[in-house]
Amino acid sequence: MAIVEERIKKNLEDLALFTSTPGNGTTRLPFTPEARGAVEYLRKELRDAGMTVREDAAGNIIGRYPGSRPDAPVLMIASHFDSVKNGGNFDGIAGVIAGIELVRHFREEGIVLQHPIEIVGTNDEEGLRFGTGYFGTRAMAGEIGIPYLRSMKDMDGISIHDAMLAYGLDPQGISTAERDLAGEIAAFIEIHIEQGPVLYNTGVEIGLVEGIVGLKRFRVTVQGQADHAGTTPMDMRIDAMDCAAKVIAKISDWAVDAGGNAVATVGSLEVFPNAINIVAEKVIFSVDIRSIDETAIISICERIKKELAVTCRAKGASFSVEETLNVLPVRLDERILSQFEKSSRELGYSSLRMISGAGHDTLPMATKLPSALLFVPSRKGRSHCQEEWTDYGDLVKAIEVLSAMLKTNDY
Amino acid sequence: MAIVEERIKKNLEDLALFTSTPGNGTTRLPFTPEARGAVEYLRKELRDAGMTVREDAAGNIIGRYPGSRPDAPVLMIASHFDSVKNGGNFDGIAGVIAGIELVRHFREEGIVLQHPIEIVGTNDEEGLRFGTGYFGTRAMAGEIGIPYLRSMKDMDGISIHDAMLAYGLDPQGISTAERDLAGEIAAFIEIHIEQGPVLYNTGVEIGLVEGIVGLKRFRVTVQGQADHAGTTPMDMRIDAMDCAAKVIAKISDWAVDAGGNAVATVGSLEVFPNAINIVAEKVIFSVDIRSIDETAIISICERIKKELAVTCRAKGASFSVEETLNVLPVRLDERILSQFEKSSRELGYSSLRMISGAGHDTLPMATKLPSALLFVPSRKGRSHCQEEWTDYGDLVKAIEVLSAMLKTNDY
Repeated sequence: MAIVEERIKKNLEDLALFTSTPGNGTTRLPFTPEARGAVEYLRKELRDAGMTVREDAAGNIIGRYPGSRPDAPVLMIASHFDSVKNGGNFDGIAGVIAGIELVRHFREEGIVLQHPIEIVGTNDEEGLRFGTGYFGTRAMAGEIGIPYLRSMKDMDGISIHDAMLAYGLDPQGISTAERDLAGEIAAFIEIHIEQGPVLYNTGVEIGLVEGIVGLKRFRVTVQGQADHAGTTPMDMRIDAMDCAAKVIAKISDWAVDAGGNAVATVGSLEVFPNAINIVAEKVIFSVDIRSIDETAIISICERIKKELAVTCRAKGASFSVEETLNVLPVRLDERILSQFEKSSRELGYSSLRMISGAGHDTLPMATKLPSALLFVPSRKGRSHCQEEWTDYGDLVKAIEVLSAMLKTNDY
Repeated sequence: MAIVEERIKKNLEDLALFTSTPGNGTTRLPFTPEARGAVEYLRKELRDAGMTVREDAAGNIIGRYPGSRPDAPVLMIASHFDSVKNGGNFDGIAGVIAGIELVRHFREEGIVLQHPIEIVGTNDEEGLRFGTGYFGTRAMAGEIGIPYLRSMKDMDGISIHDAMLAYGLDPQGISTAERDLAGEIAAFIEIHIEQGPVLYNTGVEIGLVEGIVGLKRFRVTVQGQADHAGTTPMDMRIDAMDCAAKVIAKISDWAVDAGGNAVATVGSLEVFPNAINIVAEKVIFSVDIRSIDETAIISICERIKKELAVTCRAKGASFSVEETLNVLPVRLDERILSQFEKSSRELGYSSLRMISGAGHDTLPMATKLPSALLFVPSRKGRSHCQEEWTDYGDLVKAIEVLSAMLKTNDY
């Protein structure tokens, strides 16, 4: 039996129901009831596809399809099941369902590779809730310890540690999620929507990702003083909003200046106490900087810190900068990339080599083992919004390319 | 029996418990369970002080102490019972309790004036929740209609209309809150904490307010486009946060430029969807501008609108500006002011004539009937924060000044 578009469609439509914002896109933040619902759905689908299933200590859901060589390392096919706020129904989860459909296809055709396959739905790739990112894959890489779980907190002050407990995971066991990546895993492969306009605009069917931009994220806190907005003269204020705005206003220009196709975004900002008639006591905002050129990222970051220092000193405010994520740009595995290119050509699908402006779970894995990332087109390049859309037929083509490449048993 | 500091202290300590943020100051937003609790407490205290009590259709709580001349117009002594977010225990409510203590004193001493006295706890003076202000007093002035109740909404999209229903008030009856201010009310008198540093720094006991600054408030919405923070090049973004910051960054300088001791504040800002890795689709922020000089207010407002137009056009964003409040500067009643000055002198209390940088319920009333405002010192000038403090003894002095002035029966 071939790759079945209808099954993919049903799975993704079902999973879109696990959202905290019905009618306003998919909001499936990690360690929430919505995330739990999606994981239990995936657990059932993985099992029904003939896999043995487990949830690891980091909340990754893992299905295993055995290979013919008992000692062969695993082919890991993964993407994430969490979403952004009011996001779309494809980002991440489409790659998980692509993996499940691949195994359904293999099982129905009686195809068994030398290597076992693991289909993984990873947890908290977006990093939205705690201002982090790649939680599930970084836990597999052994990079997440208990102090980290306790120190990273969401806007309500809830730590990852406490969120895990409420979600039914044991934070004390986090180290058991670690895998021997170099020894136990042969390759990491991800299918993901492009989330940009390149494939859609060019009409190309398969994106072959050669490299992923680096990404630095930090959380800036500007501390001023709460005062009455009417009775406090301008020269006696320490207005955290004023200081923050003076810095944020310049960040987009600095991103353009930096070159390397760098992008910088202040997507999240909270004012305390956030009242019309109170001078802001505190402003917390996020900064997200990306480029394939590490020096561009560093230069933007340094300009922000310098401007914060100058502005806050002038106004009597103080500030802190907490780095929440720092990932270097990476190149992906050329050998696998060439195989995908060959399979695409043989299947008659157009393909294009490109750089990814988004991170994806492939990013933290690519420095540790051979890794590859296939893109499928996003309509109008829209993503992280309700309008996010990928034709199910385009997902089928990517799974066919992956299937054809795997069946060569040459990787 | 004299004015009793202990009763004032007990009342204010009791009322501090009606907060949605215990341990983090007083947060008593209008039409909430906390507001209801405070109103029911005031109802009991007003009744125990010998007054007949009613809650009007706008949620003002009104106690009436009869006078000797049945046809004499009312002396209204009022301040508000709502608070800002994480505010203090004195702002507004101290003036209501001062009024109740005055009547307790009159009743105990058997003092009956020619005029009836009404002690009023006004509703939603701060205007924080719905981005408005002076709700209770404006309803008494007949300025609040049903369309207004439906159109003004809080951050959760709840209209005043619906909030009233949930709070147990009938929005359809709002017009019954109107009073014949010119005919039925002789004078409006408010005791309020200064909320600024002047009395505290000079050691003066009584502030005699000659005028109140004008106040313009508006809500700005900047509409951009949500996009992935990694895959959307800088030149393809419509970043609402970037546009908003470029405007907000300049507002404090414009306030200084404008003269007239003008102040301008962006105290509240919300980002949508407010996620680290999504370019901001929409930013909504408040602007609060005040000055004793109306032309200064207008000049700042015009510069903001012009800069919004320029910045949004350059980036492809759109914006709207919704004026939520516009009150002209006013002078208070010189005759009452002189009486207060005389009473202060006779009681041996130091006093100072001053301009109020904050609005207070007196502001909307002062254009319609003889009005006066007495300030008591705020420790270190702090207000709208947990550190807000006024010595109970200073409240006693202000009530003594008010009592002595009223007993002259000459106003």
